[in-house]
This record gives sequence, C-alpha cells and structure tokens, in this order.
Amino acid sequence: MMENNQAIGIFDSGLGGLTVVKELLKALPNESIVYFGDTARVPYGNKSKKTVCKFSVENADFLIKHEVKIIIVACNTSCSLSLNVLKKKYKVPVIGVIEPAVRKAVERSRGLRVGVIGTRSTIKSNVYNRALKKINKKVKIFSKSCPLFVPLIEENWINDDITLNIAGRYLSDLKKREIDTLILACTHYPLLMRTIQKIMGRRVELINSAEEVAGQVKEHLELSGRLREAKQKGRCLFYVSDEPAQFVKIGGKFLGRKMSRVRKV
Amino acid sequence: MMENNQAIGIFDSGLGGLTVVKELLKALPNESIVYFGDTARVPYGNKSKKTVCKFSVENADFLIKHEVKIIIVACNTSCSLSLNVLKKKYKVPVIGVIEPAVRKAVERSRGLRVGVIGTRSTIKSNVYNRALKKINKKVKIFSKSCPLFVPLIEENWINDDITLNIAGRYLSDLKKREIDTLILACTHYPLLMRTIQKIMGRRVELINSAEEVAGQVKEHLELSGRLREAKQKGRCLFYVSDEPAQFVKIGGKFLGRKMSRVRKV
Repeated sequence: MMENNQAIGIFDSGLGGLTVVKELLKALPNESIVYFGDTARVPYGNKSKKTVCKFSVENADFLIKHEVKIIIVACNTSCSLSLNVLKKKYKVPVIGVIEPAVRKAVERSRGLRVGVIGTRSTIKSNVYNRALKKINKKVKIFSKSCPLFVPLIEENWINDDITLNIAGRYLSDLKKREIDTLILACTHYPLLMRTIQKIMGRRVELINSAEEVAGQVKEHLELSGRLREAKQKGRCLFYVSDEPAQFVKIGGKFLGRKMSRVRKV
Repeated sequence: MMENNQAIGIFDSGLGGLTVVKELLKALPNESIVYFGDTARVPYGNKSKKTVCKFSVENADFLIKHEVKIIIVACNTSCSLSLNVLKKKYKVPVIGVIEPAVRKAVERSRGLRVGVIGTRSTIKSNVYNRALKKINKKVKIFSKSCPLFVPLIEENWINDDITLNIAGRYLSDLKKREIDTLILACTHYPLLMRTIQKIMGRRVELINSAEEVAGQVKEHLELSGRLREAKQKGRCLFYVSDEPAQFVKIGGKFLGRKMSRVRKV
C-alpha cells in the first residue's frame, strides 16, 4: 500500500512547531515528515480570524500538494481560529495541539486544579478554558500569559539565570494557587521545561502539548492501519516562507538536532 | 492662513511612535497631531520591502485624508524601506526618524565612536551604518540588537531589576568598545533611557531619535512659516487598525500622560 508511505504534514506560523516534529521523530522514527513554517507572516497571534483562516488554508493546501496522509496544525492561533474549517475542507485527518494537551491534563490532574501558560493572544482567547470545561466542568483553571518566553527562547537564553528569574515572576501566582498540572500552551515552551519545572516544583506535572500531539498521531495511525511500512528511517523536509537563515539557526534547538533540507517556498 | 492650522501627521507600525508624539507635545505644544498606529499589522520588521512600502503608502494616505501639513514616519522599518517612495509621492514634507538621530550623533560624538542599538531587523539592515558613514566616513560604528527590549517595555517592566540585568548583558560589548555616543534606534527605547544611561555611565551621550525628530519638525515649520497660529493648545487624535484596548493601556506610558480619543479605523 503506497499511501501508507505518505508523509505526515505539519504547519506552524513559525518554528515553534518544530518541538512537535521532535516528538514525532521520537514516537514515530520511521515516518516521513513535511513541515511548513510561515515565517514571512509570523506571528498569527494578533491577526483577525478571517486572515488566520486564509493563511491556514494556504498552508494546508501546500501540505496537501505534498500528498501528506495527515495534517498537524501546530500553531495555537490557527487551531483556535481555523481548525474546524480545515477539518471540513480536507479528506485527510486534521489534528490540532489544543485538544490532546487538554485531554491529558484532565486525565492527569488529581485535584482538578490546572494551570495554563501561553502567549498573550492564546490566554486572552480563553480557548484552553473552554476546551478544559468541555471535558470536565469541575476543573479549576488558572491561566497566565508569559509574553517574554518566546523572545527569550528565540534569543537562545534557555538555561539562563535571567530566564529563571523571569519564569519565577510569571509563575508565582500559579504556585500560590496550588495547581497540580500545568499546560504549556505554546509550542515554544517545551524548551523551557527544565526552568518551568524548577520553579513549579516536582509535584506539578507539566503537560507538553508537542508530546501529546505526537502521541495522538501515533495512536491514530496505528488504529487506522496507516503506519509507514518501509523499514528505513523516514525523510524530513522543511519549508519556510521567508529566508531560511534564522529558521535554521534557531530551529536546531527546537528539533534537538541539526537541521538540513530547509527550502524557501 | 487656514493651512497652518493643519495637523502634524505621524504614523508607526504600532505604538513606539508615541515617544515622538511626547517630544512633539514638548517642543510644539500648540500644534495639532494626528497619529496612526498600524497595530493590526505590527511588526513590520520581518516583512518584505514590497509589503512594507504598500503598508506605508496606505498609512500616509490615511494621514493625507486628514489634511496634515507634514508626515513623520516614526517606524524604523518603514523609514529604511519606504521613505524615498513616500517623499516622491506626496507634496507635503516627509520626515523619518533615522536621519535626525544620525546627524545629531555625528555632531555630538567627540571621539567618533558611535553605538547603535535597535531591533534585530533594524540592526541587520545596516541602515544606520550607511547613514552615519554618509555624513562622516571616519565614524567608527558598533551596533547591537536588543530583541528583548520591546517585549520588556510592552510588559511594562520599565524600572525593573530584570530589565537592568538584561540591559547590562546587551550593552557590555558596547561599553568595552568605549563608545562616547549611543543612538537609540528604536522608538520604544526612550522608555529605557534611565536604565541604559545607568549601564553606559554618564560619559556616554544617548541620542533619543524621538527628540531629534521633534526638533527637526519644529525647525522645518519655523523656517517655512508654517507653525500653527491658534493661541489655544492643539488637539491630538489617535487612530489604530486593531482593537484600541492594549494600545490605550500601554500608550499612556509612551506618551507620558493619559491617552484619550483613540479610534479604530
């Protein structure tokens, strides 16, 4: 069956989605991946629904042209504004980053006290709150936007006293609220896992949405009998809409390995 | 002469240009001002020349509809990519933020060792280097991008130990280079004047481009006999392209007074 050898498609407004690719490579090392980062139009966070839907459809169309067997929407803004549109439009399954993380958080939280951290626009949109309440109305949600995390990560100040200091300030309210589970509602944030865990302490479980999405994709491909059958490792292709230099430079950190085969569309 | 009572027009990709408005209000308290902040499409820094030119022309057209007598381009990216286009297109004078700052820096620097700090895209563009060299080939230029300054300011962490700490790290190279003059090549940065001066020491003169632009506008209006003649204070009107809430909230800090009359276009 040729079609099982088709690639997994994934798009993001920029490079954050590479943390999802990292988890896909771990969970499904034999799969091929086509990634599209819309670096010329990043960020989506402050753009209108109409515009974000238009961009998301264009990105998904690009992946469809590469004959992917599934589409992962790795951008939180795209997920909250366009996921339903994409699900209706395409025959292949479309998976977002919000639902897998939310499901896992409710599953893991003993006291149903869940924290959510993300960019200003994600937090303001309340999309995680709605998704959590949909699964369990009793869950108490405490959210906090951490607008400096993305620029700190893109500055590559990852294991850094300044970043630890800033994380301490952002997270102090959530600590006081005694949450037991914390959703990293931004695909950049897995790079700060160690810092965030240090601040929150061992008793708070961090939910890495990248890892949860990869798990859901694996489950779906297994259940539908669509895992790649080739014995050798899959290929990763990366496409971006702006000059690839900055993407390649920082992307390696996100991916946990050196990047190659990055092309401008 | 009715036309001298026309407003001064000013646009920026966001709210940084409000530091220019603050200086205009100081230098020319009787003038009226129309401000446009393109908050729906901010930031311009990573967008192509063609796109930035298109946006800049649209912004300037909006000001022209308000019958302004002069246009100030308060966005560094717009200045470096579209100032010549705008100068050719409009009959009213068009003034950018780069040239006044650069002229002042060369005038004030005793040792001709000039530092330039700005966003990643401004520094990468080398536009300040070219402008400085055009005035004096002998000037030694040391530049440094400070990508965290804008998000720190927008987080309102202005007089803050974390910001002082980050500034110390960004500016340490420039200190070692023994510059005597430092251009703040981003309209957000005047809010960090005190922090930056503390790090650089009293012997380094900071060039606030907002102040220099206001000075040049005053000079121009005086020389051309176009100062507003009314005795009472002028009116300030603010327009933005996205929801005004965030703009109003942070804008007051930039302006040094409470904002009113902000409308979405």
